[in-house]
Amino acid sequence: MTSLARIAILTFSLLLPSTNVLGADPQMVDSGTTAWMLVSTALVLLMVPGLAMFYGGLVRTKNVLGTMMHSFVAISIIGVLWVVCGYALTFGKSILGGFIGWSGDYFLLRGIDDTITHGVPEYVLAMFQGKFAIITPALISGALAERVYFRGYTLFIVLWFLLVYCPLCHWIWAADGWLFNSGASGVIDLAGGLVIHVSAGVSALIVALFLGPRKGYPKSTMAPNNLVMTMMGAGLLWVGWFGFNAGSTVQSGLDTARALTMTQVSAASGALTWMLIEAFAFRKVTSLGFVSGILAGLVVITPAAGVVQPGGAMVMGALSSGICYLALNIKMKIGYDDSLDCFGIHGVGSGLGVLLLSFFIRDSWMTAARQNIAGWNCWDQLLVQLKGMGVTVALAVVATFLICVVVEKTVGFRIDEQSELEGLDKSLHSENGYGLIFPESR
Amino acid sequence: MTSLARIAILTFSLLLPSTNVLGADPQMVDSGTTAWMLVSTALVLLMVPGLAMFYGGLVRTKNVLGTMMHSFVAISIIGVLWVVCGYALTFGKSILGGFIGWSGDYFLLRGIDDTITHGVPEYVLAMFQGKFAIITPALISGALAERVYFRGYTLFIVLWFLLVYCPLCHWIWAADGWLFNSGASGVIDLAGGLVIHVSAGVSALIVALFLGPRKGYPKSTMAPNNLVMTMMGAGLLWVGWFGFNAGSTVQSGLDTARALTMTQVSAASGALTWMLIEAFAFRKVTSLGFVSGILAGLVVITPAAGVVQPGGAMVMGALSSGICYLALNIKMKIGYDDSLDCFGIHGVGSGLGVLLLSFFIRDSWMTAARQNIAGWNCWDQLLVQLKGMGVTVALAVVATFLICVVVEKTVGFRIDEQSELEGLDKSLHSENGYGLIFPESR
Amino acid sequence: MTSLARIAILTFSLLLPSTNVLGADPQMVDSGTTAWMLVSTALVLLMVPGLAMFYGGLVRTKNVLGTMMHSFVAISIIGVLWVVCGYALTFGKSILGGFIGWSGDYFLLRGIDDTITHGVPEYVLAMFQGKFAIITPALISGALAERVYFRGYTLFIVLWFLLVYCPLCHWIWAADGWLFNSGASGVIDLAGGLVIHVSAGVSALIVALFLGPRKGYPKSTMAPNNLVMTMMGAGLLWVGWFGFNAGSTVQSGLDTARALTMTQVSAASGALTWMLIEAFAFRKVTSLGFVSGILAGLVVITPAAGVVQPGGAMVMGALSSGICYLALNIKMKIGYDDSLDCFGIHGVGSGLGVLLLSFFIRDSWMTAARQNIAGWNCWDQLLVQLKGMGVTVALAVVATFLICVVVEKTVGFRIDEQSELEGLDKSLHSENGYGLIFPESR
Repeated sequence: MTSLARIAILTFSLLLPSTNVLGADPQMVDSGTTAWMLVSTALVLLMVPGLAMFYGGLVRTKNVLGTMMHSFVAISIIGVLWVVCGYALTFGKSILGGFIGWSGDYFLLRGIDDTITHGVPEYVLAMFQGKFAIITPALISGALAERVYFRGYTLFIVLWFLLVYCPLCHWIWAADGWLFNSGASGVIDLAGGLVIHVSAGVSALIVALFLGPRKGYPKSTMAPNNLVMTMMGAGLLWVGWFGFNAGSTVQSGLDTARALTMTQVSAASGALTWMLIEAFAFRKVTSLGFVSGILAGLVVITPAAGVVQPGGAMVMGALSSGICYLALNIKMKIGYDDSLDCFGIHGVGSGLGVLLLSFFIRDSWMTAARQNIAGWNCWDQLLVQLKGMGVTVALAVVATFLICVVVEKTVGFRIDEQSELEGLDKSLHSENGYGLIFPESR
Repeated sequence: MTSLARIAILTFSLLLPSTNVLGADPQMVDSGTTAWMLVSTALVLLMVPGLAMFYGGLVRTKNVLGTMMHSFVAISIIGVLWVVCGYALTFGKSILGGFIGWSGDYFLLRGIDDTITHGVPEYVLAMFQGKFAIITPALISGALAERVYFRGYTLFIVLWFLLVYCPLCHWIWAADGWLFNSGASGVIDLAGGLVIHVSAGVSALIVALFLGPRKGYPKSTMAPNNLVMTMMGAGLLWVGWFGFNAGSTVQSGLDTARALTMTQVSAASGALTWMLIEAFAFRKVTSLGFVSGILAGLVVITPAAGVVQPGGAMVMGALSSGICYLALNIKMKIGYDDSLDCFGIHGVGSGLGVLLLSFFIRDSWMTAARQNIAGWNCWDQLLVQLKGMGVTVALAVVATFLICVVVEKTVGFRIDEQSELEGLDKSLHSENGYGLIFPESR
Repeated sequence: MTSLARIAILTFSLLLPSTNVLGADPQMVDSGTTAWMLVSTALVLLMVPGLAMFYGGLVRTKNVLGTMMHSFVAISIIGVLWVVCGYALTFGKSILGGFIGWSGDYFLLRGIDDTITHGVPEYVLAMFQGKFAIITPALISGALAERVYFRGYTLFIVLWFLLVYCPLCHWIWAADGWLFNSGASGVIDLAGGLVIHVSAGVSALIVALFLGPRKGYPKSTMAPNNLVMTMMGAGLLWVGWFGFNAGSTVQSGLDTARALTMTQVSAASGALTWMLIEAFAFRKVTSLGFVSGILAGLVVITPAAGVVQPGGAMVMGALSSGICYLALNIKMKIGYDDSLDCFGIHGVGSGLGVLLLSFFIRDSWMTAARQNIAGWNCWDQLLVQLKGMGVTVALAVVATFLICVVVEKTVGFRIDEQSELEGLDKSLHSENGYGLIFPESR
C-alpha cells in the first residue's frame, strides 16, 4: 500500500524474514495485522478532531467554530468522494499516461467486498488510506483561517483533492505509480512526507499568498482564543500519529514497531528542542512553542519512520524544530499570513524529512538495498527524493494557484470585509462557539 | 455474541470461508481477534466521555456538569450492576418463559475466569457488551436534560436497565433469545439498532412527554453553552463508533472490515446530507447541523453495518439525515421537549436503519441466505425486522412510562422550580463547570 | 516485562496453558499480541493529555497552561532520556550491586533493532515502558501545582526519573531485579502500584511539605477553573488505563482480558462508592468526587489487575474510595497542600492495592503457586508486598527530599511571590489559557 511496505514486500522480504509476519498466504486474513490496521484507521480519524482542536484554539473566538468546521467538513466531503472515486483514482491502475489511476472495481468500492491483501481485508486498507485523503486538505485550512467563505473552502478542497492529492498519491504510493518506481528503490515516503505534508504545506503557502493577510494582520494582536484546547488537540494528534505512521507499514510486526518508535522519539526530540530554543532566546518557554515542536518532530519523521533508527530520529526531530522555528521567524519578516503555519511546519519540516532520511537509513536496510540494487547509495537515494520533492512542489504550486483562481471567480473564496470583521461563526454559521460567555446561555 | 456474528458462525461460515478467521479451534485464544475486541471495548468506553461532551456542550452553562454526570454516572452504576447481574440476565440461559436470562456462573462473572469463546476470552466479550449496557441509558439523558433530580435519574437508569435493556438484549442477542431465533434468519441487529438506539430513543420520547418541557421552553432562547465541546464530543463518538459497530462482529476479519467501512461511509454521507439540506434551506451551514448529520449517519448504519455495501451505506446515511431533519422540525411544531434530540436522532434514524437494511443486503449474504434458508427473501426479512421493532417499541413505551411514575412517586424525578432556575450544577452538585468565568477561580 | 508477565512465563505457563498465547516460538512475531501492545502504547500516551486536562481543570485560570505543561513536558524530556539511557538503566543487566541496570545495547536502543521477545518486537516493549516512565513524574506535578518555576520543575523530573524511577523500576520489574526475585513469587506489581503510583504519591507528599502551601491556602477559595475539562480528562484516563493495566500483561490473551476486566470493575466500583459516601454525608454528589472515585478505583487495581477476580476488584475499588476519601479529609485537617491530591489518591489508593491484593488472588493462581512454590501462602505474599512497599517509600522519601534541596539551591523550585500572584501562565509562559475571556482574542 505504501512505498515502504511495497518495497519490503517486493524486494527485501526474503532477506529480512522477521519483517514478514504474514505467514504463508497473504490472501488469508491475519487477524493481528487486521486488528492493527483497524485501529490505525481509528487513530487517523482521531486526528481530525485533534486537528480541529489544535487549529480551533489558535484563532480568535469569533472564528472558532468556522475553523473547526474546516477540519470536520473534510470527513464528510472527502469521505464520500473517496468511496465514490478517490480510491479508484489513487490506487487504480495507471491511465492517461500514468497521470492518474482508475479501476472500475474501485468505483463505490464495489469490487473489493471479499478481497484480502497482505493478510488484511482490502476495505480496511481503503479506509485507512481514505483517512489520509481526508486530513490532508484539512491541514491546508491553517493557511486560510479566519478569512474564507465556507462555500469557497468546500469547493477548494474538492478540487484540490481531485487535482493535487489524487495524482500525487497515485504517483508516489500506487504499485504502478511512476515516482514509486523511480530510481532503483523508488521514492521513500512511508506515511506521506510528500503526499501529505509537503503537498499541503506548499499549497498552504500559495493559498496564503493568494488570499492576502487577514484584516489588521500583522499589526493588531490576534491572540489565540483557547490554547488549552490547542494543547489537548496536540495530544490527540500525537496519539493519532502512531496510527498514521505505524499503520503505514501495513503489518503488525517489526517495521510497525520501528515506525512507532521513531515517531515517538522524533516528536519528543522536536518538542524538547523548540523548548530549549525558546529558553535560550527568551528565557521563557511557551506552550504554543512546545506544541509546535511536537508537530515539527512528527512531520519530519513521517516519510522516514520506517527506515531510520532512534538516534537518527532524535537528530531529525531536533533539526526539524530548529528549521521550522527559523521558518516561522522568516514568515514574520516577509509578512505573508500563513495563519496557523501549515507551510512553516508541515511543508518545511516534512520536506526536510524527505531529504534528510537518505542519510539516516538503518544499516540492515542499506545492506539489503546494496545486495538487491546494483550500486545503491545514499546520494542516489537523495536524488530520487529530490525528484519526488520537485514534482510535488511543482504540482502543488501550479494546481493550487489555478484552483484558487477558479474558486474566487465562481463561488468566492476571500470573505467580504464585513463578515470577516464579524467573524465566521456569526456571519457564516449563525452560531457562537462559547455560548457560556454570553448571558443567554446561562 | 451479536446476531450477525452468530448467524455467520451458525449458518454461513462454511459458505463464506474468508469470514472464518478463527482457525481450527475456537477455544484457543486468537490473539488478533482478542486484540481487536480489547480495543473495541476501549473505544466504546471512549464514547461515554464523548457523549458527555456532546450533550454537555448543548445545554446551558448552569447545567453543564449535571448533564455530563448523567453520562458518566452510568459507567459506575451500570458498570457495577452489569458485573453483578447484568451479564447473567442478558446472556444467561432463557428463564421465565424466555422473558429474561440467568446463569449462576455469570453472577459476578465468577464462572468465566478461564473461558475462551470464538477465540476470545469471554471476559472481553462480557466487558464489550457491558459498555453497550452503560451507554444506552446515558443516551436517554438527552431527553431529560436540565430538569431532573440526580437521585431520580440514577433510580431511573437502574430500573430501565433491569426492565428494558436486559430483556431486550436477551431477546435479540442471546443465542436462545426468541427474537434472535424469530423468522428464518432472525432479527438482524448488528450493533444495537433496536437494543440500543430505538429502545433509548423511544424511551426518551416517553420521558420527555412525562416530564414536560423545561421552564421557558420553547419561548426563551436556550443557547448551547459550548458548541466547541459538542464538536469534540462528536469527533470522539465517531472514533468510538468504529469499536461499537466493527467490534460487534466478534472477529478481526472480513466482516469487521465491512462493518467499519459502512460505518465510515454512512456517517460521512449523513453529515454531508444534513449540510446540503441546511445550505439549500437557509444558505447557512451550522456546526450543530453538521454533527447531527454525523449522528444520523452513525445510528442508521448501526444495525446494518454487517450486511450492506458502500453504496447502500451511502444512501442509508443520506436518507437518515433527511428523515431525522424532518423529525426535529416536527418536534418543534408539536412542542414536546426532547431537549437534545435522543428520539429524533437515535430513535428515528436507527429505526429507519433496522427496516431499510432489508433492501440493501449484500449479494453474497443474500445468496448464502437463499441457499440455506428455504424461500428467504427481503420482504420476509422486513417482516422479521418489523416484528423486532414492534416488540422493542412496545416494551420501551410501557416499561418506561411505569418507571417514570415509580421514580416520580418515590425519590422524585422532575426537579423543583427553584432548583431548575438555579441550574443543576449549583443546586444539585454545588459546583461550577467553568470556574474560569468567575473571579474566585482566577 | 512486568512481574506478572514474567511470573506467568517463568513459573506457571506450563500449568496454565490458556495464558500461553504465544505459540511455539517467542522469537517469531505474534501479530495479535504486537497489535495489542502497539495499541497499549498509544493508550498510555493518551493518558498524558488526559492527565494534563484532569490537573489543568482543577487549578485556577491563571495557572492552567503552566499546569498542563507540567504533564506535557514530561513526554519530551523523559521521552528523550528514556531512549538515551532510561531503558538501559531499568531493563539492562544489574550493575552496582543491583542498584541499577545497564546494557550498552540499550543505549539509544541501538541493539534491539531486530529483537523479538515474547512474540513482540522489543521496540514496542521499550516504548510501552517508556510511557510509564513519562507519566510517573507527571503525576507528581499535582502536588506542586501553582507554585514552582518551570525550570525547577524540569530539573526535578530529570533527577527524580534518574534517582527514583529508574532504580525502582529495575528492582521491581527487571528479570534480575532484587525485589522481582524477592520471596518465593516476587513482589506482585502488575502495572506499577509501587513503581508508579506509590513512588509518585509518596514523593508528592515530600514535595508538598518541602514547598509549603500556596499563598492563601487554605483560607482563600481556590476554585477549579474548568471542572468540565477535568471530567473529560478523567474519561481519557479511564480509557488509557486499559492499555496501562491490560498492556502490562504483554499478551493479547486470557491474562489481558482479566486485567482489563478488573480495571473496569474496580473503577466503576470506586466511582460508585465515592458517590454514595458523598450522598450519605452531604446529600449532594459532586463531579469532582465522582472523578476522584474513578481514580481511586483505578489506582488500587493497578498492581492487582492480573491476579484478582471481579468480586475482589469490586471490593478493592470500594475500599480504595473509602480510604482515599478519608485521606483527603485528613489532609484538610493537617493542612499540607498536596494541591491536586497525588498522595491522597495515587499513594494511598495504590498502596492499599499493593497490600490488599494478597488476599484477593484468584484460586487458579493460588493453586499454581502452591504447587510450584513450597509453602506459599497469602501471608507470605503480604510480607513480600510489605517489603516492596517499605523499600519504595524509603527510596521515594529520601531521594525526593534530596532532589528538592538540590533543585531549590540551584535553579530555584518555589516560585517568587510576585509570579505566584500573577500566575504561572503570564509570569513564566507569557500566555493566557483562555484568550476567549479577554477582548483581544475576540
